Amino acid sequence: MPVSSFPSDATLADVGEFPLISALTALFEQGEHVLVGPGDDAAVLRIRNGHVVVSTDLMVEGRHFRRDWVPAEDVGARAAAQNLSDINAMGGTASSVTVGLALPADLPVKWALDFARGFAAECAKVGASVVGGDVTRSETLVIAVTVLGGCTVSPVLRSGATAGDVVALCGRQGWAAGGLAVLGRGFRSPRVLVEAYRRADPPYDAGPVAAKAGATSMIDVSDGLVADAGHVAEDSGVVIDLRTGAFEIPEPLQAVGSALGADPLQFVLGGGDDHPLLATFTRAKDVPAGWTVVGSVLAAGDDGPRVTVDGAAYEGPVGWTHF
Amino acid sequence: MPVSSFPSDATLADVGEFPLISALTALFEQGEHVLVGPGDDAAVLRIRNGHVVVSTDLMVEGRHFRRDWVPAEDVGARAAAQNLSDINAMGGTASSVTVGLALPADLPVKWALDFARGFAAECAKVGASVVGGDVTRSETLVIAVTVLGGCTVSPVLRSGATAGDVVALCGRQGWAAGGLAVLGRGFRSPRVLVEAYRRADPPYDAGPVAAKAGATSMIDVSDGLVADAGHVAEDSGVVIDLRTGAFEIPEPLQAVGSALGADPLQFVLGGGDDHPLLATFTRAKDVPAGWTVVGSVLAAGDDGPRVTVDGAAYEGPVGWTHF
Repeated sequence: MPVSSFPSDATLADVGEFPLISALTALFEQGEHVLVGPGDDAAVLRIRNGHVVVSTDLMVEGRHFRRDWVPAEDVGARAAAQNLSDINAMGGTASSVTVGLALPADLPVKWALDFARGFAAECAKVGASVVGGDVTRSETLVIAVTVLGGCTVSPVLRSGATAGDVVALCGRQGWAAGGLAVLGRGFRSPRVLVEAYRRADPPYDAGPVAAKAGATSMIDVSDGLVADAGHVAEDSGVVIDLRTGAFEIPEPLQAVGSALGADPLQFVLGGGDDHPLLATFTRAKDVPAGWTVVGSVLAAGDDGPRVTVDGAAYEGPVGWTHF
Repeated sequence: MPVSSFPSDATLADVGEFPLISALTALFEQGEHVLVGPGDDAAVLRIRNGHVVVSTDLMVEGRHFRRDWVPAEDVGARAAAQNLSDINAMGGTASSVTVGLALPADLPVKWALDFARGFAAECAKVGASVVGGDVTRSETLVIAVTVLGGCTVSPVLRSGATAGDVVALCGRQGWAAGGLAVLGRGFRSPRVLVEAYRRADPPYDAGPVAAKAGATSMIDVSDGLVADAGHVAEDSGVVIDLRTGAFEIPEPLQAVGSALGADPLQFVLGGGDDHPLLATFTRAKDVPAGWTVVGSVLAAGDDGPRVTVDGAAYEGPVGWTHF
């Protein structure tokens, strides 16, 4: 029996596994590179350029999102975005995605379908197809996404920054953290920040452009700017110095800072979930349009690789860690 | 602080995210095709033949395994096996795997490391590298695996069976179900069946061999023989008739059947988790060595595509469904 013949408040337990999978799969359009799509033991994809770029991320309800704070469609968009962004951060473009859904039996089917719609729409932004997945039952709602893509030039790693490089950022940063802070206090405005938390807007074209422009290292800022800059510093064996004067604090973040009695710069330096790109370039003139120079790369001294802010250690919250 | 400096009963919460990831990653050797391994935003893999075969599966504690029934190393081996087997069922060979782990904070680090050892060992059987993953915290333990591979001939789909084909099986079937039945009654023997439940032994070489031999359709039996044969029947638009006389019931399954008062054939027809391959071939002489002919493909009649057993509808339990 097709899912559409069930009442609108039907749960996954009412509908059953295979009708659910059929209904989900029907939402996923397949690109020309998909030789075998969902429904067999595996999908088969045509690959150009002789390589594939692959990344996996998990999202857990209650930890990465709350169903009462974020509509299903936005959870879907975010689940896709954080994975598509990982390919962006290599200087590549995503082409194919798989999604594993561990779902509670009492979850409304409508939630799963709305999730899939948001997920598919976000993938469509970069032309990626949802080529396969798995659905199973779980007390905790867990979303597992794997994304495949390719690069037209060499992938840009975290390890390529050298002293003398400039550090640049592309995409909004701190907005999602501002929105989360607002929601955490029980407010729903400034709406633009709440929306930014609900739905990331990664600069998907910026990764390949930066790679072509000669970016020496790149990462997507998912955990926090200082935290993720720290991964580049560590892997490159350098110091990354961020200049607070380089960040223009947008008005809504200033407003939230005032309302909550917090320094809005903390959202920018410590916040995650916006998925801008942070990259290093040999010369300032290599930095593509749309990027802002926010710091510089220095040789690691006695304190080893690390991130400094205006030349000093940063004492604020640096980002999110699990466990 | 490295994981090895913590006490042997340390939990994930004691150790923290990044030391755990380092300790896990150190267990995964990388093949020559891995251009960029774990630790960056994404892995980069060299791909031959211009295509990639990809599949995703989830395992949830309490649903797919119990920690008190199956040692961590065997859970790891099983998590890998059920995914590697999906590539096998396309006639391909797995080359790369990602693993997402949603883990409770009070999980012993030892469990996670033993899991990873079993996972890596199973991947090594086919020469696949564990190229990336994600670790996060969750109340429910969920394992998400994605596997990538390739085929040297055209992939074998579920949809290619035609009337007149013979149906053949390769690998043990019903053993895991027998082991599960034993464990469910609180017994630990016959040991060979309990071991079969704890650790699958898929015939990884058989998929590519069958593809080269001209298999017209293929599937791996993960949910149950009748259930999975049903997917081939449905996708091919045919009837698959299984002949019970073709199955040799191994002695331990006969013993469990006697002890539990059950027909041991039910384990063979309804049991999952063994991951043998079921395939169809145009002629009996195409069937490779090591396979057993267990039935035939008939044109779908008025009742449509379905599975019959000895020419009649099968009334026993046909396999596992979620929700």
